[in-house]
Amino acid sequence: MSILASIAVPAELREAVSEQAWLEAMLDAERALANAESLAGAIPAAAAAAIAEQCRAELYDWSELAEQGRAVGNPAEPLVRALRAAVGGEAAGYVHFGATSQDIVDTAAMLVARRALELVLGQLDGAVDAAAELARRHRSTPAAARTLLQQAVPTTFGLRAAGWLVALLEARRGLRGIELAAQLGGAAGTLAPLGDDAAEVLSLYAAELDLAEPALPWHANRVRVAQLGGALDVAAGVAAKIGLDVILLSQTELGEVAEADGGASSTMPQKRNPVGSTLARACALLVHGHASVLTGAHELERAAGAWHAEWDALTGALAYAGGATAAIRGVLEGLEVDEERLRANMSDELTAEQVAYELGRERADELLAAGGPFPDPTTYLGSAEAFVDRALALWEDERD
Amino acid sequence: MSILASIAVPAELREAVSEQAWLEAMLDAERALANAESLAGAIPAAAAAAIAEQCRAELYDWSELAEQGRAVGNPAEPLVRALRAAVGGEAAGYVHFGATSQDIVDTAAMLVARRALELVLGQLDGAVDAAAELARRHRSTPAAARTLLQQAVPTTFGLRAAGWLVALLEARRGLRGIELAAQLGGAAGTLAPLGDDAAEVLSLYAAELDLAEPALPWHANRVRVAQLGGALDVAAGVAAKIGLDVILLSQTELGEVAEADGGASSTMPQKRNPVGSTLARACALLVHGHASVLTGAHELERAAGAWHAEWDALTGALAYAGGATAAIRGVLEGLEVDEERLRANMSDELTAEQVAYELGRERADELLAAGGPFPDPTTYLGSAEAFVDRALALWEDERD
Amino acid sequence: MSILASIAVPAELREAVSEQAWLEAMLDAERALANAESLAGAIPAAAAAAIAEQCRAELYDWSELAEQGRAVGNPAEPLVRALRAAVGGEAAGYVHFGATSQDIVDTAAMLVARRALELVLGQLDGAVDAAAELARRHRSTPAAARTLLQQAVPTTFGLRAAGWLVALLEARRGLRGIELAAQLGGAAGTLAPLGDDAAEVLSLYAAELDLAEPALPWHANRVRVAQLGGALDVAAGVAAKIGLDVILLSQTELGEVAEADGGASSTMPQKRNPVGSTLARACALLVHGHASVLTGAHELERAAGAWHAEWDALTGALAYAGGATAAIRGVLEGLEVDEERLRANMSDELTAEQVAYELGRERADELLAAGGPFPDPTTYLGSAEAFVDRALALWEDERD
Amino acid sequence: MSILASIAVPAELREAVSEQAWLEAMLDAERALANAESLAGAIPAAAAAAIAEQCRAELYDWSELAEQGRAVGNPAEPLVRALRAAVGGEAAGYVHFGATSQDIVDTAAMLVARRALELVLGQLDGAVDAAAELARRHRSTPAAARTLLQQAVPTTFGLRAAGWLVALLEARRGLRGIELAAQLGGAAGTLAPLGDDAAEVLSLYAAELDLAEPALPWHANRVRVAQLGGALDVAAGVAAKIGLDVILLSQTELGEVAEADGGASSTMPQKRNPVGSTLARACALLVHGHASVLTGAHELERAAGAWHAEWDALTGALAYAGGATAAIRGVLEGLEVDEERLRANMSDELTAEQVAYELGRERADELLAAGGPFPDPTTYLGSAEAFVDRALALWEDERD
Repeated sequence: MSILASIAVPAELREAVSEQAWLEAMLDAERALANAESLAGAIPAAAAAAIAEQCRAELYDWSELAEQGRAVGNPAEPLVRALRAAVGGEAAGYVHFGATSQDIVDTAAMLVARRALELVLGQLDGAVDAAAELARRHRSTPAAARTLLQQAVPTTFGLRAAGWLVALLEARRGLRGIELAAQLGGAAGTLAPLGDDAAEVLSLYAAELDLAEPALPWHANRVRVAQLGGALDVAAGVAAKIGLDVILLSQTELGEVAEADGGASSTMPQKRNPVGSTLARACALLVHGHASVLTGAHELERAAGAWHAEWDALTGALAYAGGATAAIRGVLEGLEVDEERLRANMSDELTAEQVAYELGRERADELLAAGGPFPDPTTYLGSAEAFVDRALALWEDERD
Repeated sequence: MSILASIAVPAELREAVSEQAWLEAMLDAERALANAESLAGAIPAAAAAAIAEQCRAELYDWSELAEQGRAVGNPAEPLVRALRAAVGGEAAGYVHFGATSQDIVDTAAMLVARRALELVLGQLDGAVDAAAELARRHRSTPAAARTLLQQAVPTTFGLRAAGWLVALLEARRGLRGIELAAQLGGAAGTLAPLGDDAAEVLSLYAAELDLAEPALPWHANRVRVAQLGGALDVAAGVAAKIGLDVILLSQTELGEVAEADGGASSTMPQKRNPVGSTLARACALLVHGHASVLTGAHELERAAGAWHAEWDALTGALAYAGGATAAIRGVLEGLEVDEERLRANMSDELTAEQVAYELGRERADELLAAGGPFPDPTTYLGSAEAFVDRALALWEDERD
Repeated sequence: MSILASIAVPAELREAVSEQAWLEAMLDAERALANAESLAGAIPAAAAAAIAEQCRAELYDWSELAEQGRAVGNPAEPLVRALRAAVGGEAAGYVHFGATSQDIVDTAAMLVARRALELVLGQLDGAVDAAAELARRHRSTPAAARTLLQQAVPTTFGLRAAGWLVALLEARRGLRGIELAAQLGGAAGTLAPLGDDAAEVLSLYAAELDLAEPALPWHANRVRVAQLGGALDVAAGVAAKIGLDVILLSQTELGEVAEADGGASSTMPQKRNPVGSTLARACALLVHGHASVLTGAHELERAAGAWHAEWDALTGALAYAGGATAAIRGVLEGLEVDEERLRANMSDELTAEQVAYELGRERADELLAAGGPFPDPTTYLGSAEAFVDRALALWEDERD
Repeated sequence: MSILASIAVPAELREAVSEQAWLEAMLDAERALANAESLAGAIPAAAAAAIAEQCRAELYDWSELAEQGRAVGNPAEPLVRALRAAVGGEAAGYVHFGATSQDIVDTAAMLVARRALELVLGQLDGAVDAAAELARRHRSTPAAARTLLQQAVPTTFGLRAAGWLVALLEARRGLRGIELAAQLGGAAGTLAPLGDDAAEVLSLYAAELDLAEPALPWHANRVRVAQLGGALDVAAGVAAKIGLDVILLSQTELGEVAEADGGASSTMPQKRNPVGSTLARACALLVHGHASVLTGAHELERAAGAWHAEWDALTGALAYAGGATAAIRGVLEGLEVDEERLRANMSDELTAEQVAYELGRERADELLAAGGPFPDPTTYLGSAEAFVDRALALWEDERD
């Protein structure tokens, strides 16, 4: 994440996926582990309390941990060492008890993802409602439908917005359906150091963190990570589709819509750029790149590389998905629709297809040759309106 | 699809996604459209019957249609013309009534996908059951777990297989969850030519084809296509993970498993290559490439390019996903597990971690320096066995 | 390759990358190997002659070879067996002497790529010249430049075409710079069976095939394959950029250009779709997906999967790159440029920036508020014309 | 960039691609522009001096600029405003004269890329020399070649290292061949505000920055960016290949090599993880994801989104390519090669192919059935050694 992220990703989300947030989440995992083990009787309650006491991010320095992480290939090992040093005494021996670095990093990834998803879903909710409002308001506003960017037949602006709405609802459903699960398997997924307590600790650990309890440790089964990446890619892709539509409809020659906060040019006084839509598309491209890293095979009980690549790919996918959805929410909430331009842009020939259906292709060709007269396009909008109503009904159904 | 496809993708699946299969599916869509419109009273029953009569693939020549499709950019337009010519008379005017090329091609894509998914899921079912059988049979078979390809701690071969099983179950759930929907929107998603019959025709059309009825035409909302691509990518990725594991465990130096049909080398008499696993991995790479094409923004009411790219990307994703799952099913069903080699390969030091937990890290380091004696690794397998049981319970739950 | 390929990829190119073409290329490799070995004295001349005699594709059946290839994971092994059977006698023992399957398949890939590249470059040459002609003809044709799809400042249509030209030249340079090398390393890159003849045979083999002689066998060093994929992706990307521009400029509301063979709609009589540009974009998306498979790590002396995935990914990248360049060549060669629409579309405000530079931003804002009068945009085209001349000079330089 | 970047990307490189580095590079571009314009007589020398005076990064706050950049969609516009305010007076009017935001951001991208490439190439140089040293030292060290991870035939460890060397040389050649060009086109590529000075200013500007002078402004021609991404992907891919080989050869059961700084496990005392190789592979996966964003079509004179996505994709590709090459350099420089294990691991059957060639396949099969005796594998290494010499000669040729 860099220039674009600092411009397009909301500050709250950048923070939620920051290295500091990962550090806190790793400490949350260590604390939950100690608590779960204490509840299960696997470690002394006093040790758990002593450990919890030191699981505060302000006690540790990320750059130092990262520096040390170079030698071992992950940030959890130095954190565990630092945590042990901070806890001290006998309790130190119970830090990270039975766990492996991947348990902590994967669980942290899930916690970071949960917080980030809340923010992404918040933006998506806003976008959904704004699209619904546009669909409702413009249910009957005549507009030219365009296929392959050629004017095709009459439609309503509301039906276009309804299309956005349905796609946003589907994307939201996808994100809501992702199950985030705790990770705890010990060195290689057996949890052997916990012996007979293994199952109970896993269950308590997941409960402490309010994450799902997986059937098995998933050190080398990354289906849930791939699905998360896929759902983020879909959500960002929907934002990009809406952004693309808005950019096209905002063209100087069309002028059918404008972003409320259209951006100024550094040199051209007359320009009003569709900035939000542009940022949504840019973010979506980056989500796609990051999500593409989140699938693939992890060898045996822990992958040498494919796992490590996930950390930053997931971080990026979450952040830019938030950038895309935040941008498109802003676009939709402030979208200015110029009904006059919409109507004025509709070419007479938009009803040529309808003529062909009603009077035959020959007649349509005659009219095209003669330049008309064509029927009024607004007489053919009933089915579009009916589709808008279907989309709005779906939206109502999916409100909380 | 080319060399690899002809080797690795089952013939039945290659046929199911062939150009001929697409042609048949397009004709199925036209027939269903006519029937639906006839039932709704939008066109005469006799016309529907006459149309249905000509919706047989053997009447048309794919290469000719493709040749003509060059000028219009899709194969449906020439097919509609050919179909009209075949139907003749007044009924010809009712061919493709109210529909657009994309309605036919998208619906055909869903039909092709359905048939292909049946075959992919069939392979996946076989792989699931074979993995379950391996997990059950080797629930307690001692093995060395390996992380970053270093021996780590003792596990059981059954737990490794249980990991495969759970990933396969998740991949199957993902594919089963995909909703395939009919496409019918007319020129640009309004279905205006059908007027008040629009909703009814859409509903009947979907029912005729046994596809889901979408809330709206989805000409430019490709969420379902992206999700299908994602689910295929996940499934192929799981196959690749299993293949990678099998290849690693089949290494000359490990010899813990062998594919039943290990392939001969063209020149090296002693070799027995893990061919099935290799093909699974290769196919999965191609699924990933194809699936990456299936996301992205489609502009306004029909995309000029992004839509057209889907046809071959979806075809490829389906075919290679079938190649990957078929190969891995074969691998799992015939996997030879050498329990002696598994046991012999386990290094004494595998229990060093356990020593560290029980007697302290210092003691473990002493033993490492002295070269042992370490405890018997097979005394720490209880938790692994318990995890196997959890996976098998999940499997039982998800049987039909 | 499927529906889109049969529509968009020229028949000659589809043939050049077909399974039959691969088969022929594999036989070419076997023949060249025998010849080279005979010249080096490593095998009897009579054996080489007998082998060459049987290296004719019509003697073998691809589907049969593919079927048998399933068991060994590649098509070369069964071909070698079939070739040995066809040669018979003592000479049979000299078939494929010292080589491995990968030698034959990789060399075939290079031969297939060479033939396909010729065709792709042929299309690219045509596109280059057509773009140059457009740049020349419209060197001074006024047009509105558009950034973020908003009218920005005056330009000339020739400068836009010059931009296409330069990008096409760069893409062509990239493809021309790809070195296609023979592959011959034996079982694992040592060529040991050829002993002291190894270097000479390698050199003669490359010369026979008119391919570059590599420093080492490149069984697991796939840089050249990745670079080929990258160069194809770049070329297709340039075609897609031109296609996107043409689609945008062809919009009903702009009408500045039109494809000569604009496609009819299946139902809308008035439409004229930018079909060539659409196909170019679609093909480019598929090239991108295929090229993404052509990079990555190949393990030790031969990859178990990553290599096998290359076959179809390379085939697809070549084919669709040809589809993209052929389509865009057609678009450029027949592009109709409507100078009147170009001029009419130019908004008065296009010179606002120039006013701001010459008279200050305040004055520009005043004019914008007052609605003009703005200076004539055609008075600021000198620098655009000069840039066109630079591009044309570059084009002249790179003519053969 | 996040967790992995902070662990694996050298601090110097992280700095070189940081937001601060981008800010400095943007100011460098503004300074060079003013200087070039002053030299060309387009703006007063005093203004250029005043501007240069304020082109110091410490005068500006990145987060503030980023915050303001949200509204306009890029960081250059607020920077220009801040720079104008800092310069003040009449000279302020000459800040950014004739340029557009993209000129500054693209030029900055090239400057950032140049500095980062220096660092990447530095790492690559080290890796090249270390691979050459391994090839030289182990020219004749016997080893088992492995294909599809099965032991195949005898080779030398030096030949494997020579394979790495040649791939590294090719990757280096690719990166060295990238031309970084200045960007200066004004609002939409015409440079009209500079009138007759346009060409001279462009030339002087490029010279000031020591960047190549492009034929045309390349606002929407991204071939060079795609090629840069491709070359970084190739370089990282080579690092990943070496890493993968090292990980495989480091397996507990093989033990043929070990990283000098093999990493400790957080819990398993006996483990020594191939950390450098693991990080190289992880970084390479991220380069691939980022590079995939760097191709594609940019519409008309400036893309609404595709351009903006490049900033972070390029940053990431550069950073992780540096991470991959730095890691693999460390691996190669410190690689411990265990000649005894190499020899001990060689199975007797490695010469079965050679037997087949010399005495016939039947005899080879007999020996395999009888378990030997096979010829000594070290008698067949001459051709491998000769190949090593070829690689080393190539290396010598390409030394500066």
